[in-house]
Amino acid sequence: MTASIDAETLDRLDAWWRAANYLSVGQIYLLDNPLLREPLAKEHIKPRLLGHWGTTPGLNFIYAHLNRVIRDRDLDTIFIAGPGHGGPGVVASAYLDGTYSEVYSTIDRSDDGLRRLFKQFSFPGGIPSHAAPETPGSIHEGGELGYSLSHAYGAAFDNPDLLVAAVVGDGEAETGPLATAWHSNKFLDPVTDGVVLPILHLNGYKIANPTVLARIPEEELLALMRGYGYEPYIVSGGFDGEDPRAVHERMATTMDEILDRIAEIKAAATAGELPGRPAWPMLILRTPKGWTCPAEIDGHPAENNWRSHQVPLADARDTEAHTRLLENWLLSYRPDELFDDSGAPVALVTALAPEGDRRMSANPVANGGLLRKDLRLPDFRDYAVDVPAPGETVAEATRVLGEWLRDVMAANPRDFRLFAPDETASNRLQAVYEVTAKQWNAEYLPIDSDNHLAPSGRVMEVLSEHQCQGWLEGYLLTGRHGVLTSYEAFIHIVDSMFNQHAKWLKSSRGIPWRRPVASLNYLLSSHVWRQDHNGASHQDPGFIDHVVNKKADVVRVYLPFDANTLLSTYDHCLRTTDYVNVVVAGKQPAPNWLTMEEAIAHCTRGIGIFDWAGTEVEGEEPDVVLACAGDIPTLEVLAAASILRERLPELKVRVVNVVDLMRLQSEGEHPHGLNDREYDALFTTDKPVIFAYHGYPWLIHRLTYRRAGHANLHVRGYKEEGTTTTPFDMVMLNDLDRYHLAIDVIDRIPGLASREAALRQELQDARLAARQYTRERGEDIPVVAEWRWGGGTRTTRIDTTGGDND
Amino acid sequence: MTASIDAETLDRLDAWWRAANYLSVGQIYLLDNPLLREPLAKEHIKPRLLGHWGTTPGLNFIYAHLNRVIRDRDLDTIFIAGPGHGGPGVVASAYLDGTYSEVYSTIDRSDDGLRRLFKQFSFPGGIPSHAAPETPGSIHEGGELGYSLSHAYGAAFDNPDLLVAAVVGDGEAETGPLATAWHSNKFLDPVTDGVVLPILHLNGYKIANPTVLARIPEEELLALMRGYGYEPYIVSGGFDGEDPRAVHERMATTMDEILDRIAEIKAAATAGELPGRPAWPMLILRTPKGWTCPAEIDGHPAENNWRSHQVPLADARDTEAHTRLLENWLLSYRPDELFDDSGAPVALVTALAPEGDRRMSANPVANGGLLRKDLRLPDFRDYAVDVPAPGETVAEATRVLGEWLRDVMAANPRDFRLFAPDETASNRLQAVYEVTAKQWNAEYLPIDSDNHLAPSGRVMEVLSEHQCQGWLEGYLLTGRHGVLTSYEAFIHIVDSMFNQHAKWLKSSRGIPWRRPVASLNYLLSSHVWRQDHNGASHQDPGFIDHVVNKKADVVRVYLPFDANTLLSTYDHCLRTTDYVNVVVAGKQPAPNWLTMEEAIAHCTRGIGIFDWAGTEVEGEEPDVVLACAGDIPTLEVLAAASILRERLPELKVRVVNVVDLMRLQSEGEHPHGLNDREYDALFTTDKPVIFAYHGYPWLIHRLTYRRAGHANLHVRGYKEEGTTTTPFDMVMLNDLDRYHLAIDVIDRIPGLASREAALRQELQDARLAARQYTRERGEDIPVVAEWRWGGGTRTTRIDTTGGDND
Repeated sequence: MTASIDAETLDRLDAWWRAANYLSVGQIYLLDNPLLREPLAKEHIKPRLLGHWGTTPGLNFIYAHLNRVIRDRDLDTIFIAGPGHGGPGVVASAYLDGTYSEVYSTIDRSDDGLRRLFKQFSFPGGIPSHAAPETPGSIHEGGELGYSLSHAYGAAFDNPDLLVAAVVGDGEAETGPLATAWHSNKFLDPVTDGVVLPILHLNGYKIANPTVLARIPEEELLALMRGYGYEPYIVSGGFDGEDPRAVHERMATTMDEILDRIAEIKAAATAGELPGRPAWPMLILRTPKGWTCPAEIDGHPAENNWRSHQVPLADARDTEAHTRLLENWLLSYRPDELFDDSGAPVALVTALAPEGDRRMSANPVANGGLLRKDLRLPDFRDYAVDVPAPGETVAEATRVLGEWLRDVMAANPRDFRLFAPDETASNRLQAVYEVTAKQWNAEYLPIDSDNHLAPSGRVMEVLSEHQCQGWLEGYLLTGRHGVLTSYEAFIHIVDSMFNQHAKWLKSSRGIPWRRPVASLNYLLSSHVWRQDHNGASHQDPGFIDHVVNKKADVVRVYLPFDANTLLSTYDHCLRTTDYVNVVVAGKQPAPNWLTMEEAIAHCTRGIGIFDWAGTEVEGEEPDVVLACAGDIPTLEVLAAASILRERLPELKVRVVNVVDLMRLQSEGEHPHGLNDREYDALFTTDKPVIFAYHGYPWLIHRLTYRRAGHANLHVRGYKEEGTTTTPFDMVMLNDLDRYHLAIDVIDRIPGLASREAALRQELQDARLAARQYTRERGEDIPVVAEWRWGGGTRTTRIDTTGGDND
Repeated sequence: MTASIDAETLDRLDAWWRAANYLSVGQIYLLDNPLLREPLAKEHIKPRLLGHWGTTPGLNFIYAHLNRVIRDRDLDTIFIAGPGHGGPGVVASAYLDGTYSEVYSTIDRSDDGLRRLFKQFSFPGGIPSHAAPETPGSIHEGGELGYSLSHAYGAAFDNPDLLVAAVVGDGEAETGPLATAWHSNKFLDPVTDGVVLPILHLNGYKIANPTVLARIPEEELLALMRGYGYEPYIVSGGFDGEDPRAVHERMATTMDEILDRIAEIKAAATAGELPGRPAWPMLILRTPKGWTCPAEIDGHPAENNWRSHQVPLADARDTEAHTRLLENWLLSYRPDELFDDSGAPVALVTALAPEGDRRMSANPVANGGLLRKDLRLPDFRDYAVDVPAPGETVAEATRVLGEWLRDVMAANPRDFRLFAPDETASNRLQAVYEVTAKQWNAEYLPIDSDNHLAPSGRVMEVLSEHQCQGWLEGYLLTGRHGVLTSYEAFIHIVDSMFNQHAKWLKSSRGIPWRRPVASLNYLLSSHVWRQDHNGASHQDPGFIDHVVNKKADVVRVYLPFDANTLLSTYDHCLRTTDYVNVVVAGKQPAPNWLTMEEAIAHCTRGIGIFDWAGTEVEGEEPDVVLACAGDIPTLEVLAAASILRERLPELKVRVVNVVDLMRLQSEGEHPHGLNDREYDALFTTDKPVIFAYHGYPWLIHRLTYRRAGHANLHVRGYKEEGTTTTPFDMVMLNDLDRYHLAIDVIDRIPGLASREAALRQELQDARLAARQYTRERGEDIPVVAEWRWGGGTRTTRIDTTGGDND
């Protein structure tokens, strides 16, 4: 094989690699004496040895070789470290190229800086053993495995000149999300998107086991990668004591071949000469686990063994023999050749680093807030539905939102995308197809002409919530905007991904050099109350519960209940940064309650009284508060209020609606929280409050347990009573129906149940009759409701049956 | 190609297929006139058309062909319907083979029975449009996609004579869990396990899009399947009006080839002549979406188009032309040839069905409770750690449990497995390797001799929580037992799978013919408080919150706090059925608090007073209650109690520990709930309760908000303040440390804060000093605590630093 590099470049590659390895080992083991200016002693070693060595030399090796090609070809590149516990490596590289000292000034290029660099690693108050928000150049939290490749593709979308080098660990490769993420290449457009170079790093072992992909025949592995649609290249080396310089040469040659091929594909695509989806190159790099660590420790193999996954010399501080082994290991990198007297890396090392923003750790793409631009948002008021009186018109809320989103897409053609697990149209957002397509680079058939598919487009549909979430995270963290729409129940599939993103945002807020990124916006529809034929498997409103466990300064939850409130809510969400906004909304035909002016006022407050629906008398406290959050609970509360108005006209009923769920919390617990005075003014401190809530009822208790009136709060919500049935039967099964709410009011006002026993029985009978009607006919029952309006009252008939079948 | 079937068999196959298709269409559309004895009229059609047609004819086709080979070869086979909305098909097949009428007697083989069969589908109170617990022969809920292949392999483990036919939809195949589930073949043992036959059904479309695997070149698809380690067979047909009989012939021939090959592999394996992992056959079946529905509706293509995914004739009731189209569609199956005058299927159809338990819908494997045997459990008392006095010995709780689990494994060598995402040893359960191995059928290297790998073994390790959960669910639902151990934070990865399993258990309990299966047991360790180097990404105790949203009769949560309580808890869990048991326990060296006798008594109650730790006086109410749940909170509460004993000896402190978290709920809300009298006797109704809890503090409020003393309850727990730091620093960051708890007590007792201002300040200073110590040195601080003991007091010094590095 002809070497593609000269001896000087080879020296630089090897020097960088040795330096990065040295710094990685130093981070894991050393408290002091960072450059071994004196013999290594017990007190120089950390009392607790934490962190992982195993994957690091491979990451350092790849990083070095990427540096070379970035310099040679002036590439715009970011680096994603997928393998777990790769932290020491990416930190070492960011230190060597200078970025680390630029963003953390006390960790400068000196002995002292090195001492601080080493100590902070896996040390109290320091940095974790994974790539993390604290790591310059990272958009990927390495703690939970499986998302590196999705993040990489998310970063590449709409970044046509970007190369994303994504290192996939062979442990990580066993996860489901990673196993499907390879298929992202069926969506990437070679012209308008960037390039992802997956580097599958086979070091053979995870914590305590070999890895699957390292233990299948090479022809099977190649078939798998070809089956995923890639053109695989292989570099293997470092085994049985092979000289690393030989591996450097093979790696450099292969990297050049790969980048030549990528350049060819890009050129052909740009020239319009690419027939269909290309087989993008990917690299399989096979090196020993723990490469360059002691070959054997205490008679057990260490290098090229799962034993080097974590800390190969666990007793380095306590056993003289291990201390000496560690010292020799460190010296094997010849630090005196790599660092000068001041502790700074020498020119031989730093010469490999690209300049300025070309450094992978300094690339602004990986600090997306630097690049984020505010969206151009069309005025959502122009999309308002007409509401002559409450409930008199009907709309599918998400369909109306879709029209606005269409124009958001049109106005922001390069940095806004919509992601969905095959549910964009099911969730009624198909208006977006008027201005863009579903991006699709797999095969086409003639029939696809009416299916809104195109090689370039900004709706991303794949039947994997993981893929959608991972792509969106990568897209947001590189400075763009997006929305993920999903069925409410199945967004739980990404609970853990949400956790990591929320933690990323929380940490980022504390890192001065990280700039705010666009919020992650969920639009959850096909919700718990409308699963007429899907039944119990599709009924779960618990994502909200999951989300509110995270830091209050990161999460927001909204329950707009009609088209205009949804428009107003979403306009707000798309203007925010560094949040996760969860919006749950209906997609079925449902009554519109508020005019746009009312909707804006209501959503701005986040909570408020529907005076047209209640019967309270100005200046007097109500007898009872009927509260609601969510479209179906709002409908049932309004119907209950109408029943009470008709049957108990003397009763002073207040109707309160909550759009911004976090308003219920105390102001000390959430920035949106009402203060107690505001809360008490709405809910009273001593009157019964019947609260009809979209999700699990106990969440309302958890949000309000500190409030004065909490003992009088009675919450109805989804209590896991679901099946294949009509909307009315669903609320009935969960005691959230209009009749039950009216009975709740009667039961909670002292003395009323005995005075109104006949009415109570009548409501109970009506309830059972309604159930029988709906169960027998498979149709819903209409609501006939009366409101205060124009100085008098006005009657509306609302039919909730209908909507189609998803 | 030579047909492998005679004309009579071909007639039977086609008749079965037509009958099943007819019954499927009937379920979707018809309310009445099930056999079209009169012309189809509007009133015979359901008012709301729900359900999905698209995948059903393919499922029916496969089912028919499996029936044939089961009969011909006397196979023991179950059927897993992976594609979404396949309900009508599997129900139709179970009806045709007679099982459906056996388990649901009113749905008999008559016109009336058919009317009921049709009406119940996607109708209020009826059955959902997916395979579900209500479906005889199913172990797989088809509502949430992605788990069919994992379930199939779980069913096959330790069932050496079983063939699991797993139909994978091409939509489902895009999910992450399914994409990695193909690799399950690296774990299956050809001798001791059964066979999984994956059938990838490419009908080309999901809800509104083509599918990825249907739109890659065939050579790529074949490479992918070979890369996954399978030998792919292809059957393609039914396009462009091809006669189905020709497709039947090809399918039958291919099925015979596949089953011959499977028989060869099994025989070779049994004879010990199989070198390494075989390439098991898998089938790619390519047929039109919605096969046999009208080719075109209103000028749009229907068959072989995404438009046939759901209900192809949405206006069948309201449009005469559509009514006629539907009638012609139904008649195209020639029902008069398939059903007799009484409405029963004729012999031509039923002759294809296997007999008795060989029918896939009647196979007892798919109603695992019929086969489940109680585990032989060694006496856990024999594994007790010695506890001369509270806190005087130290153990790693999960390591002790591992010794008992080892002997559980040895005593139950065919029906108990342990599943872990590469974390069995990290969670300290490695004693199990003394009696079994990690099952591994990928390649071996000489170095593996010390790695506890073997082709047959009952520890399942793969770096995919999805895979572990899916395998375990399949294993349990086919009548066996198991435990899944995972890091606490990352069990959120399977939140949604847990949801579906919990819903399955809830539904199953209401189905008389489903017998109870073994509980799904989680052992969560490496928990939120001990992530010394992993940091924030590994800190999330919210799985408990997620779990308790599900039905109280299905979920149980335990927080044993030392080795003996963990043993006692787990012995209980392994004896239960139809629950999900969540057990969170520590793996680091930690003090043992209770003797085995005390542990049993305490765990039996689930909650109780540690009188040795408190200072209350018999017969008097305490001044304050210090409550705790979880190992770290228990340690901190005990340390706080000791501080108070020393510094405020006159204060009457009660220490309450909760092992069974559900004891806190009201008895009306959970079967384990204490009644109010019992609760008040423990917690008082008016004294301050400082509750140190393992997870998010608000969960304790949500569980107790109805209790009399709730207003006096102050909960400390994890409030998302985490980082890379020591155990003490972690509790300190979340205000759960011993000093803060003692200060909480001082602050909550009226007047005490002013009387004890100096002590309060001293504790505050000690707190900050402890933090500085631990942060600077990276070591934890010891606890020195004093207990009532043997009529006097006894002092213990507890050092919580240590434990290794996972």
